[in-house]
Amino acid sequence: MNVSEFVTSIGDDLTSWRRRFHQFPELGWTEYETTYLIGSELEELGYELYLGKEALVTEERMGVPVEETLQSAETKARNQGVPEEWLEKMKGGHTGLVAKLDTGRPGKHIAIRFDIDALPIAENKEGLASHFPTKQGFQSHYPNVMHACGHDGHAAIGLGVATFLSAHQGALTGSFTLLFQPAEEGSRGAKSMVEKGWLDDADVFLSGHIGISPMQVGEVVASAKGFLATSKLDVTFTGRSAHAGVEPQEGKNALLAAAAASLHLHAIPRHSGGETRINVGTLHAGSGRNVIPDHAAMSLETRGETSELNQYMEDEAVRIIQSSALLHGVQAAIQIVGKGVEATDEPGWQEFLQEATAYNDRVVKVRGSLPLKASEDVAYMLNHVRERGGKATYFIFGTPLAAGHHHPLFDYDEKVLEVAVNIYASSILSLLLDEE
Amino acid sequence: MNVSEFVTSIGDDLTSWRRRFHQFPELGWTEYETTYLIGSELEELGYELYLGKEALVTEERMGVPVEETLQSAETKARNQGVPEEWLEKMKGGHTGLVAKLDTGRPGKHIAIRFDIDALPIAENKEGLASHFPTKQGFQSHYPNVMHACGHDGHAAIGLGVATFLSAHQGALTGSFTLLFQPAEEGSRGAKSMVEKGWLDDADVFLSGHIGISPMQVGEVVASAKGFLATSKLDVTFTGRSAHAGVEPQEGKNALLAAAAASLHLHAIPRHSGGETRINVGTLHAGSGRNVIPDHAAMSLETRGETSELNQYMEDEAVRIIQSSALLHGVQAAIQIVGKGVEATDEPGWQEFLQEATAYNDRVVKVRGSLPLKASEDVAYMLNHVRERGGKATYFIFGTPLAAGHHHPLFDYDEKVLEVAVNIYASSILSLLLDEE
Amino acid sequence: MNVSEFVTSIGDDLTSWRRRFHQFPELGWTEYETTYLIGSELEELGYELYLGKEALVTEERMGVPVEETLQSAETKARNQGVPEEWLEKMKGGHTGLVAKLDTGRPGKHIAIRFDIDALPIAENKEGLASHFPTKQGFQSHYPNVMHACGHDGHAAIGLGVATFLSAHQGALTGSFTLLFQPAEEGSRGAKSMVEKGWLDDADVFLSGHIGISPMQVGEVVASAKGFLATSKLDVTFTGRSAHAGVEPQEGKNALLAAAAASLHLHAIPRHSGGETRINVGTLHAGSGRNVIPDHAAMSLETRGETSELNQYMEDEAVRIIQSSALLHGVQAAIQIVGKGVEATDEPGWQEFLQEATAYNDRVVKVRGSLPLKASEDVAYMLNHVRERGGKATYFIFGTPLAAGHHHPLFDYDEKVLEVAVNIYASSILSLLLDEE
Amino acid sequence: MNVSEFVTSIGDDLTSWRRRFHQFPELGWTEYETTYLIGSELEELGYELYLGKEALVTEERMGVPVEETLQSAETKARNQGVPEEWLEKMKGGHTGLVAKLDTGRPGKHIAIRFDIDALPIAENKEGLASHFPTKQGFQSHYPNVMHACGHDGHAAIGLGVATFLSAHQGALTGSFTLLFQPAEEGSRGAKSMVEKGWLDDADVFLSGHIGISPMQVGEVVASAKGFLATSKLDVTFTGRSAHAGVEPQEGKNALLAAAAASLHLHAIPRHSGGETRINVGTLHAGSGRNVIPDHAAMSLETRGETSELNQYMEDEAVRIIQSSALLHGVQAAIQIVGKGVEATDEPGWQEFLQEATAYNDRVVKVRGSLPLKASEDVAYMLNHVRERGGKATYFIFGTPLAAGHHHPLFDYDEKVLEVAVNIYASSILSLLLDEE
Repeated sequence: MNVSEFVTSIGDDLTSWRRRFHQFPELGWTEYETTYLIGSELEELGYELYLGKEALVTEERMGVPVEETLQSAETKARNQGVPEEWLEKMKGGHTGLVAKLDTGRPGKHIAIRFDIDALPIAENKEGLASHFPTKQGFQSHYPNVMHACGHDGHAAIGLGVATFLSAHQGALTGSFTLLFQPAEEGSRGAKSMVEKGWLDDADVFLSGHIGISPMQVGEVVASAKGFLATSKLDVTFTGRSAHAGVEPQEGKNALLAAAAASLHLHAIPRHSGGETRINVGTLHAGSGRNVIPDHAAMSLETRGETSELNQYMEDEAVRIIQSSALLHGVQAAIQIVGKGVEATDEPGWQEFLQEATAYNDRVVKVRGSLPLKASEDVAYMLNHVRERGGKATYFIFGTPLAAGHHHPLFDYDEKVLEVAVNIYASSILSLLLDEE
Repeated sequence: MNVSEFVTSIGDDLTSWRRRFHQFPELGWTEYETTYLIGSELEELGYELYLGKEALVTEERMGVPVEETLQSAETKARNQGVPEEWLEKMKGGHTGLVAKLDTGRPGKHIAIRFDIDALPIAENKEGLASHFPTKQGFQSHYPNVMHACGHDGHAAIGLGVATFLSAHQGALTGSFTLLFQPAEEGSRGAKSMVEKGWLDDADVFLSGHIGISPMQVGEVVASAKGFLATSKLDVTFTGRSAHAGVEPQEGKNALLAAAAASLHLHAIPRHSGGETRINVGTLHAGSGRNVIPDHAAMSLETRGETSELNQYMEDEAVRIIQSSALLHGVQAAIQIVGKGVEATDEPGWQEFLQEATAYNDRVVKVRGSLPLKASEDVAYMLNHVRERGGKATYFIFGTPLAAGHHHPLFDYDEKVLEVAVNIYASSILSLLLDEE
Repeated sequence: MNVSEFVTSIGDDLTSWRRRFHQFPELGWTEYETTYLIGSELEELGYELYLGKEALVTEERMGVPVEETLQSAETKARNQGVPEEWLEKMKGGHTGLVAKLDTGRPGKHIAIRFDIDALPIAENKEGLASHFPTKQGFQSHYPNVMHACGHDGHAAIGLGVATFLSAHQGALTGSFTLLFQPAEEGSRGAKSMVEKGWLDDADVFLSGHIGISPMQVGEVVASAKGFLATSKLDVTFTGRSAHAGVEPQEGKNALLAAAAASLHLHAIPRHSGGETRINVGTLHAGSGRNVIPDHAAMSLETRGETSELNQYMEDEAVRIIQSSALLHGVQAAIQIVGKGVEATDEPGWQEFLQEATAYNDRVVKVRGSLPLKASEDVAYMLNHVRERGGKATYFIFGTPLAAGHHHPLFDYDEKVLEVAVNIYASSILSLLLDEE
Repeated sequence: MNVSEFVTSIGDDLTSWRRRFHQFPELGWTEYETTYLIGSELEELGYELYLGKEALVTEERMGVPVEETLQSAETKARNQGVPEEWLEKMKGGHTGLVAKLDTGRPGKHIAIRFDIDALPIAENKEGLASHFPTKQGFQSHYPNVMHACGHDGHAAIGLGVATFLSAHQGALTGSFTLLFQPAEEGSRGAKSMVEKGWLDDADVFLSGHIGISPMQVGEVVASAKGFLATSKLDVTFTGRSAHAGVEPQEGKNALLAAAAASLHLHAIPRHSGGETRINVGTLHAGSGRNVIPDHAAMSLETRGETSELNQYMEDEAVRIIQSSALLHGVQAAIQIVGKGVEATDEPGWQEFLQEATAYNDRVVKVRGSLPLKASEDVAYMLNHVRERGGKATYFIFGTPLAAGHHHPLFDYDEKVLEVAVNIYASSILSLLLDEE
């Protein structure tokens, strides 16, 4: 079987899928259209689908939007043609799906994860002629939502891998579980799929990301390391408003509490045990110039090279937030809306992938490990599989980038989609061969 | 002439005008509909109207919204039926108007000012059944804009006073100038009317406000004092974004600059020379949780018992804002978007008003001076008239309040409208009599 | 009786007393030598003396130094020749004294207060030739202690007044109580004398201060007003030290807690009810550059135009200090070491003093009230007497100043001493005459 | 030659030297007595001595105390019996010395460094019976100065090594340079010796430290790594004082500038390039509770895993300090009083030392590298030698510690002195053998 030729034959599909996802981006836990698009393709390919509460544990989801946001997204999806029976299953932020393919023959259980959510970013505001999606007419249809982290490509790659597996089903052994994960951004969704048990008996777990580090199309990192553990916190401060001229002493200043918290959070002592991070990413406070601000909202995150280090940061952060509220006599409500764990690379995977792709002409260079220095929700999955004796890796697929991740002009070379499918497919074939 | 009876006869008009203004509130410099409603009534009453650049000096306006806000407001006004010729004159934020009535007989020049703008407040969100405008069906038609400071009533009172003057024109002497001032909130509009010269030869200047202090309908403060001088500043901080996990050191944190500025601004030393105030009313910063924030916007105000004290506060504020930017290596842009001066009461006005309303059964109690401890754009006008030898006062018309000024449930007893017109009318008559 | 001539006759004594006090300045509650010098003079003049626990209520003293400071001061006093029996009575910070003179004739009870403590300031470090005490050879013998607020003069004036009363005893009526009050600085001593009951039946209470405002010798303010209520707080923060390189996360940073408290204290909202003040006057923290600081000490004060306003400031301060400790996980210990109340002027006193000094050639101008805008421990006494129906005033004796109060080069024109005695003496005579 | 037996024979000398140094501790650049004690021993042993400006480059010294501190230390040394000719050479903070021994036979040039300064710490305040130096009667004679980092032992070890070399001179080859370095604490002295050229042609450089990590006597780390680059900054803020009650607005608050700087310094963004540190170790500000503080002094340090990282921290720190001064309108003066570079371990040294001490019964375990995570002035020397092709190591000599380094109860097992001399001597012999 020539993997590379097969993937080339579905190249147009990959591009077309990617562009469709790019046009209709959806934020975490509202991927109603996206899930439907993926699911209907997989259904045709003969996969057994698990949707909604069959796919994930409701209570383990983190950072689910408020009810009215969910309802408005569901209405929008309905208007976009998502069938009622699908919506019924996904209702209330139960997006994403799991697809299973069982060859009926004994063999490895291989699980693969693709993340599918978009970001709250307005695409390409300046209308630069150079932005490829705009030039090609597939830019985001939705204001302030954009696939600016390549998950449109990840979803397309997932469909490509699914097509490959389905087409070569007769020649494969064991079983395959494809996880199309919602709400990766903010480390909110992986745990709810893990806790559903999909990976409990996985022998091998594959996953990956487009871009990240400057590489050419055809280059691949076999196994990333340095996933930082992370906590995502939303904080609201509630004080008491007062006329700033007439009776300033009657106010309880929520803006100042948030400002104090911001400064003091960034001064959490460095930790000699390893890398830590803190960022107050957004702060919105006050209602009018001449009113003592009675509310403030803040979103922040902590990170650590290990979960212990991240917990140190989170604990410090919580105390500082509460103390800052006390400083100004206001109330602070803290919500943990995301939490990610640390992870590292799979030993020996560079050698494995070099062998697996030795004869694949689309893979030109296999690199060893690369430190991510960021957080990725997939870490829950990597660790879960390894703890049970399985192997687990996170590829990085090389591509030039038009602009950095999370940037309004983010874009990549679509040729990376084919390369990524080649890498998944060659790895799978090699894993099955190992077995024999 | 029985003032009280006449005013009673236009009581329904007052209520009806007030409610119309309340339903279609407009922010400072976008009072297109409001100006048209007022102007067309005055035209019918026979006043000579001065609109747009005839009414105010373009360059002396402060805190004019950006062009696209103005255009969108003009489009809305057009859709609401404001005629093109009116819009043409008011274009680009030239709202408000001046109406003149000359009796042809020698006598005093009396000028009266009414402010007409609304506030960026969402009315009565909770839909409390008790909110009178909602119960009566005249709540704001526009989201996030509300007459929460009584200027709807001030505009109605203005029309009432205009009706009175017009009706009794034959019995009056001298001339009358009615200023329907835009953009009082934020101390942005008075100066542009003053500089046009309307008050240069005014013998008496009258103005006033509904509510303020707990009083019954029928009570009035003859002349408020303690107007604080004020400056309104808009600040934007521009830094550099960076991924908070991957390379925090590359960021230039605008959020932290704004937070630092907020704290340090509130710590400007107290001044032994008199009262001062500082308030950072709003702060909006950052774009995403995991991005070092590259922008922050802050609105603030300073106040002082005198202009010197306010200037001390403003100077300190500017230095602190710039230093806070420097602390984080970001840029700060500071814009003065409003500036008000201090003012005090008119001596002897309590006695004057007591006499003037001695036989007016709607005025039950005339109080002396009351310290405002707030800023009011009218201070420019009060001072201007007094500097030229005229007399100038600022009434406070008593009414119970459903909630404080600038509150989403703000409301007052509509009976105060009639009382206010009585006070203006009786004062005018008494002033003319003095003459004789 | 010619007051002015008599005072001129003791002019050399006044200068000589003042210089002796200036050479041996002592801080609050350690005025052992000073008390002895005063007491032995008064004994000779025939006064009945009350020392130590006879003069004040032990428990009502505030801000008494630690035992070892007291002991070291007592040892120093012993070496300077203060007799053992005196030391025994004053032991443990029971300094100051009360002297009584009863004429045996019915009449008013007049009480007068003189404060006697010095400041922790190093005199005239730069050795400027222009500093009068240095030039005349009577500069402070003690390092870091200086009479830089004129209490050396106050004590001398007290002896002058005592001499006057003693000399004219036969011509006077009623009784006299002279309070030589310790620990005025920091508002620490007055209450302990008041609570002993000395003023309970005083008909008139006199007190005063040299300098304060720019005036010539011979000018006097009849009755100062605007005494600010005040609280004096000492705070210590205790954290945990750690090596700043090896394990910064193990530290609990007391320096940062104190720094945070300092900033946030100065940002306590201004109060529309009247003047308030806050000052963190000293901050000492840390032991070494490379150690996370585990201790910090801070001295601060709040003030208010009224006791309510000061209490608002104190309450805010306490919460902020505790919150700042919590911010850094350290402990804060707060001690109130001084507390003063507000006070105002005695009505009608300008007229009284003008009459009383009408024929006194040393008093050239009697001014009315002057706002102090500072705190003075005497306020307890003024209020106590007035509450019981007595009259009470606080004079300000005009003199040019070489440098401001509390400055290392502070000095005044010694001629003010005679003027002050004249004012006290003339007032007393006039008070007695009133009676007749 | 049996190294171990020889060292045992001088064991009492080692203890006696150490205790003498411990009794008379001296801070950096004032080691007058210490240098004399060392020098006179070395003179007797026949070393060629280089003192004062012969030993170091005046201008390359960092953090030299002010003239009056130096003079007072010289006076003290004179009183303690240091001869005038020695004092003359060391005058003005030219302490420390270099001793040379040339065997006259060709061979390696081996340089060894011992640091000799003490710390500004008060020894054993609580007088705990358990503190060994107190129990044995050799505690510090000087208040607030203590050998709390083992440099008393280092100096004794230096004399032990010198004795060994001198005694075995006939059996050795090449030449030896012993550097008794002043002012190691604060990274202030090494550079001035390096720049004098002592190490320019060194083939091997040896150095070491007692304690650091929990190990038994007999254990040794062959070569420490992870020396952090560091900068030591002294900052003074100068503002303007004012009476905090009367005219707070006239002050320029140096205390608040220092407090703001402290907070903002600790919030310098973490750097993804490696470890960084910041510590404001001491802060002293203000003169009196009721005076706006016009001065503040702050000592701080930055560190970085590399010099680039430390420079990032230093640059940020300087900008933040200057901005904080600007915030409060005060002046900041920044002085770099110490600077250390990063360094790492010598490869292969564990194997070398294992062989070298294989037959030495006092060395029970040779460990490999250990990360110091602290700064040590010796890094200049290690790097200088390696850059010229030499080998250079920094041993860590195991010993239990009574309390951590820089603690008032710091102490170690004196048996470590003999072990350390064994390690130096065995290493030297082995190095010479290598040659043959």
